[in-house]
This record gives sequence, C-alpha cells and structure tokens, in this order.
Amino acid sequence: MKGYVFHGPGQAAWEDVPDPGVQEPTDAVVRVDTVTICGTDLHILKGDVPEVRPGTILGHEAVGEVVEVGADVRTVRPGDRVLVSCITSCGRCRFCREAMYGQCRGGGGWILGHLVDGTQAEYVRVPFADLSVHPLPASVTNEDAVLLADIFPTAYEVGVLNGRVRPGDTVAVVGAGPVGLAAIATARLFAPERVIAVDVAPARLEAARKLGAEVVADARETPEQLVADLTGGLGADVVVEAVGVPETFELCTRMVRPGGHVANVGVHGRPATLHLEDLWIKNVTITTGLVDTHSTPTLLRMAAAGRLPASQLVTHTFPLERMEEAYDVFAHAAETGALKVVLGGPQREVVPVTSA
Amino acid sequence: MKGYVFHGPGQAAWEDVPDPGVQEPTDAVVRVDTVTICGTDLHILKGDVPEVRPGTILGHEAVGEVVEVGADVRTVRPGDRVLVSCITSCGRCRFCREAMYGQCRGGGGWILGHLVDGTQAEYVRVPFADLSVHPLPASVTNEDAVLLADIFPTAYEVGVLNGRVRPGDTVAVVGAGPVGLAAIATARLFAPERVIAVDVAPARLEAARKLGAEVVADARETPEQLVADLTGGLGADVVVEAVGVPETFELCTRMVRPGGHVANVGVHGRPATLHLEDLWIKNVTITTGLVDTHSTPTLLRMAAAGRLPASQLVTHTFPLERMEEAYDVFAHAAETGALKVVLGGPQREVVPVTSA
Repeated sequence: MKGYVFHGPGQAAWEDVPDPGVQEPTDAVVRVDTVTICGTDLHILKGDVPEVRPGTILGHEAVGEVVEVGADVRTVRPGDRVLVSCITSCGRCRFCREAMYGQCRGGGGWILGHLVDGTQAEYVRVPFADLSVHPLPASVTNEDAVLLADIFPTAYEVGVLNGRVRPGDTVAVVGAGPVGLAAIATARLFAPERVIAVDVAPARLEAARKLGAEVVADARETPEQLVADLTGGLGADVVVEAVGVPETFELCTRMVRPGGHVANVGVHGRPATLHLEDLWIKNVTITTGLVDTHSTPTLLRMAAAGRLPASQLVTHTFPLERMEEAYDVFAHAAETGALKVVLGGPQREVVPVTSA
Repeated sequence: MKGYVFHGPGQAAWEDVPDPGVQEPTDAVVRVDTVTICGTDLHILKGDVPEVRPGTILGHEAVGEVVEVGADVRTVRPGDRVLVSCITSCGRCRFCREAMYGQCRGGGGWILGHLVDGTQAEYVRVPFADLSVHPLPASVTNEDAVLLADIFPTAYEVGVLNGRVRPGDTVAVVGAGPVGLAAIATARLFAPERVIAVDVAPARLEAARKLGAEVVADARETPEQLVADLTGGLGADVVVEAVGVPETFELCTRMVRPGGHVANVGVHGRPATLHLEDLWIKNVTITTGLVDTHSTPTLLRMAAAGRLPASQLVTHTFPLERMEEAYDVFAHAAETGALKVVLGGPQREVVPVTSA
C-alpha cells in the first residue's frame, strides 16, 4: 500500500510501504477512507517531536472500514464503518480506569503517527480496537466524523470542559485555528453570554463569527482591554488558549477575571512566564491537557443530531494520493486560507453500518 | 489606645493612636484580646505592599470582645467573644454572593491592616461586622481561634480544597512554615495515603511530622525524585506551594503527577517560569487564590470538636505591649525557631459567649 512516511526533520513522502496486519489479538486493521492533517503533524515534520522515528507513517485521525480484527476484539467487526480516534486506550491501566485515556500507561495514549504507524495511509493497524475506534452512525458524514477524531474532542474536553464554561459566561478563545474554532462551536453548547474570538487573521476571525463568536478581536490590539470593557472591568470567565506560544498564554492570564479559568489547549514548545506576582491573589485556575477522547461518543451523537458544525472547518479536499500537495496547502495556511484539509481514498461511498 | 503603626518601609512602632469608633452602621469595634503576626505583615514592613499607607495600624487576625456595634449589625452584640477574620465581606457584591469574599468588590476583601487600620492594637474597628466576625464557641481557646483568622482557612481553602485532596492521595506540601503546616493538618482531614513535607529547616520538618506528615524531605535534595519513588514514578496527586518564590513553584510543577493538582498558596513577588513545553500534555490543574474564609465557621466547629491542632503552631507568646519584640522574634524565625507568635492583651479571661 501507500503511506505518508516521515524520514526525519523536513523530509516525508507518499510512498510504498508494507500492508499492515493484525499483530495483537486486540488489533483491528482499518481501510482509510477519509483522513486529515493536524498541526501536530507539522510539528513532527519540523523535528519538534523527537520521539517520532524516521520510517513512521504519520497521522492520527481517520474514518474508514474495518477489514480485519484480532481474536479478542468484541465491539467492531469487518465491514463496520468507524472513526479512528487520535487516542488509543488499553482500558486497563490506572489512567484508563479514570477515563484519562490520553495518559494511558498500558501501551496506548497518543501513539498513532507518533510511536506506531498512523492513519495517513491506505490502511492502518489500530491497537486496542475495542476502545480506540468508534462505530459511526449512518447520518454522520466522513467529513464531519474525521474532525471528531481529534480536534473536536480536544477543543471540547481540554478547552470547554476543563475551562468549566457555564451558561451566562463570557468566553474568550485565543487562536481561531481549527481547534480554536471547534472550541467556539462547543462552548456554545453551554449557552455562554458571549464568545470572543482573538486572532491576527481576518479570515479566521470571519470563520469564528460563522461558528458563533459574537465578538472578534485582533490579537495585536490589546484584546484584554476589549474583554475588560465588555465585562465591567472584570475579565472573561473562561479563556481558552488555542495557539501554543508563550505570548498568547500570557495574554490569556491577563484576560481572565478573578475566580476565572484559563484552559490551555495549545501545544507548547517553550516555557511561558507565569505572573504569579499578579495572579497569586486572583483565584484563577489554569489547566493543561492532552485530549482523552472520553467525549467522542457524545460528540458523535451531537453530530448525528446535526448539532455540531464540524465539517464547516473543511476548506480543502484532496484524493488520498495527493497527500504531499495537501500538506503543502495546510502548511501554508496563511496564504491558502486552509483550516482543515481532508483527503479521501477511492472508497468514499457510504458503507453498511453495524451499530451506532 | 496603643497600636502598631506602619511608617513606611522598615519603620513601625507601638505608639499612641486615637481610639477607633463606629463610623458606619455596619461596623463593630472589638477589644483585641489575642492577636498574631503574619508573614504578610513582614512583606508590608519591607515595602512589598505599596498600597499600605504610612500611618496604618497593621494586623488582620484577632480574637476579642465586641464593645460597640453600629445600628445595622445583627449577628453580634457588645460582650460577644469573636474571631476577627482576615477577610471582611460586604455580602452584597457579585463575588460575596458566590462566597468568594476575598475578591469582595463592595469595600471588603483583605482590608484590615492593609487599606484600613488593623488588629495589632488595643481596639479595632471591623467594617461589615455581620459577615466579618465570628462568635466563638466557649471551648475554643483564644490561641486556637486566632490561628483561624487567616492561616488555617488559607491553608484549607487555597491549598487543600483548591488542590482537591481526596482519600488515598499522595499530598506534597512545599514549605513547612505556619501555612504549610496548617495545610498538612487540614489535608489529613481527607484521609490521604501520605503527606510529604518539603522544607530546608530541620525544625520545620520536625513540626511537619508532629502535624501529620509521614515523610519529610530536604528541599535541596531533589524531593521530586523522592516523590516519584514513592508513587511508582507518577508524582504526587496534589502539591501545595506554601513558600512564594519561583523556585518552589517550579519544583511543585515537577512533583505533580499527570492529572494532578498544584495549589499555590504562597504570596509571590516575582513571576515564575511555567514549563508548558512539559506541562501542556500532562492534564495538570494549577490554582491560585486569596483566602475567602468561607470555611471559617466549619473550621471553628472542627476546633471546638478538638479536631484541629491549631495552637500547636504557637511557639512564642507575648503581652500585647511587647509588639515590637514579638515582631523581632517572628522576623528572625530562622534563628528563633518561631512559627506563630501570639500576643495577648490584659483581658485574657474567658468572657460570656452569646452563641456559636
């Protein structure tokens, strides 16, 4: 088969690789029908994630059809149309028992396209299939579903749930890339008073408006003052960091009200300055996290009910074999306007669904 | 009367000042029978709290007898023996309505010995008396009660409750000064598996053992390794920062397990480095806060039931008029071994109690 193989910093190619097969009785092999590219994949390509070995197929998000399962797999069978989650979970370790699958110590966690071959290929082996793939309702399209492999649960769990958004809140989302936009869309599920999107790109702020941000602000024009003006000088109840650089994290800590929450979603490569000389007295809560995907079944039900505008984030589509071109478009989002780039294999017709 | 008056950085004296009286109908005037000195008072003397104007009487913790009340005061009357809380609360603003009294926007919050004259005097005027003084059960001694004016609710609310200590947890407390020791004592109320105290002073670590820490560690000998060894490599479930310098805060973020909590209690004067490049993926929660004293009635009931070893922290006592000497002993704790220094006025007999 073909797959998108990492060959060290700055080097990757869509090339011939061996077909995957069941290695453990808990594995499933999935034919990849729809796949997307994550900002994390770009980090890997830059060499920021050194544990990814050259020779690894990238990608941790996919929708496809189960073609083979190991002897111990119970929840899916060949022919099932499934979502492949970015998080794989053993289900047995201390953290999995607490639904903190992202921290799995039993061999799971974020492993696809990281520690084992990933989804940007024609087929993918998914370890611990029972808890790591989700059968798809027929009414959820591949384009909607594939965005529920990572960015929607990430935005919802690490941003909205960790930030404890409540009805009537003022929610500020710093960074209106795909995850920030998903945070805006899922924050709305809690009926906030207002969502304020902060970014530097007018096109992303326009997308933020479409996904439900009533207020948008240029990150370079003291958005903390705008937030203060809108909240009687207090600041936002919840601030979601969806960029991943020290400057935006520090901006978030200036935008939050006393007693409020800063939910960090961004993937950071450098330390930030925490102004404890101001914050110690402010009763703030700061959270970090890798997604656990415990919310994926819920989000799939919401998508099936037409309540998640997931595929609105898809700006570009390609056939699977044009992976390298798709990466190029995604990596140059400032010029191309790309939000999410989705690729489809030759088998894009809806296939029979076993169960939801 | 006499009071301990701040005259600018490095200058304060026990001297004649005018008697306080009721100024607002919600005020009470309390005769100070027992008072203590807080680390924050030392910060003020160093000039670290510039909003304290010269001429202000210091102190925000006291036990005494109500001698006069304004026309609107309902919950106490002259003759009542009361605890004067470090936090004064209007009871009407947005934050008081959420029991976040420390952030009171109606004229309260931490004002005693800060924005208005404080408790280190023979008498003190307490604004918003209904919510800011607590009638004392007869069985709670003055020495126990005065430690519930600030350090016990601070340690309990900002450390133990914010840190969400649960049964079976490994709790690390960095800093075994009075607030850290109070955190150890109140963490034990939640039946943790173990409490680990970290400090540099052997005497403080010994005090930590007496208050319930099963394990003590020298802060200079990589206590994060000790914590890792005790927890299967994971780290502590809850880490309480009770020092207030960047180095100890950063140590706390290295000691916490994935999914754990760092509860900052320390008063910081400088920013810390937040290693988001390590922490973004760890599902950690970091909290800060000024005490709200919403737990003071609960802690008073616990003290009355003999379940809080508050006065074990008292190492030195003085009569009230030896305030300057008491400050000297407290400021040189490394040499004197002082934990809490308590001063008593001439009227130390137990007085009639109206209600608990």
